[in-house]
Amino acid sequence: MEALGRQILVEFYDCDGSKLNDVSYVETSLIQAAKASRATLISHNFHKFSPYGISGVVVIAESHIAIHTWPEYNYAAVDIFTCGDTIDPWVIQEYLKESFDSKNVSSMEMKRGMFKVPEGQKLLFKPNQEYQTN
Amino acid sequence: MEALGRQILVEFYDCDGSKLNDVSYVETSLIQAAKASRATLISHNFHKFSPYGISGVVVIAESHIAIHTWPEYNYAAVDIFTCGDTIDPWVIQEYLKESFDSKNVSSMEMKRGMFKVPEGQKLLFKPNQEYQTN
Repeated sequence: MEALGRQILVEFYDCDGSKLNDVSYVETSLIQAAKASRATLISHNFHKFSPYGISGVVVIAESHIAIHTWPEYNYAAVDIFTCGDTIDPWVIQEYLKESFDSKNVSSMEMKRGMFKVPEGQKLLFKPNQEYQTN
Repeated sequence: MEALGRQILVEFYDCDGSKLNDVSYVETSLIQAAKASRATLISHNFHKFSPYGISGVVVIAESHIAIHTWPEYNYAAVDIFTCGDTIDPWVIQEYLKESFDSKNVSSMEMKRGMFKVPEGQKLLFKPNQEYQTN
């Protein structure tokens, strides 16, 4: 069995709450984390809630990074979904841990899209040279 | 311990691959699924890859729905992340199962953001009457 994608669910506890309530800081952090992993950015979209909290998503060619912050609890939930083997999702996790000053991180890696592959063959990952965004 | 959010990771296998490669169909399906659950839509953003595959996210006040499709494998990975107790994420899962004609669904529910709560108190969920989007 091979997996098309991998996903890290990250719980960032004991963060700097003021950073988690600063939408431009959170947006820049996710974009820089994606760049640090050499992901290909496609779009990004962030929203601030009143009085607290940010939701945002960075879509990358290799899948996505999503965040929801609860500054009042110094907590952020982050999903790092990647496919292919060109980028390392743990680079993104480490970058964000530093960005948010998280003192307590809990992460779980899941495999997504499991298929049996005949011997000698591989799953066709995205992105590769055959895949381009329209 | 109480959780701020819940997340369903859904593996939609054995779908109708042509539907999974139709970006407007996929986008409409996710938006309609969100509406069926009475979620509050904030934004949506979908991308088609060449020759196959779609990535898209619907941000809702209650968190997000994300999809990545592999039409060539008749497979879609969907994340349904909700917070608060005003919407039922399983309504979204059921709606999308029908939309994509998935004959083989595997789902896992995760709790996100676990906190100890003093007796008689509750976590402050988003959205509630105090929370509005800017």
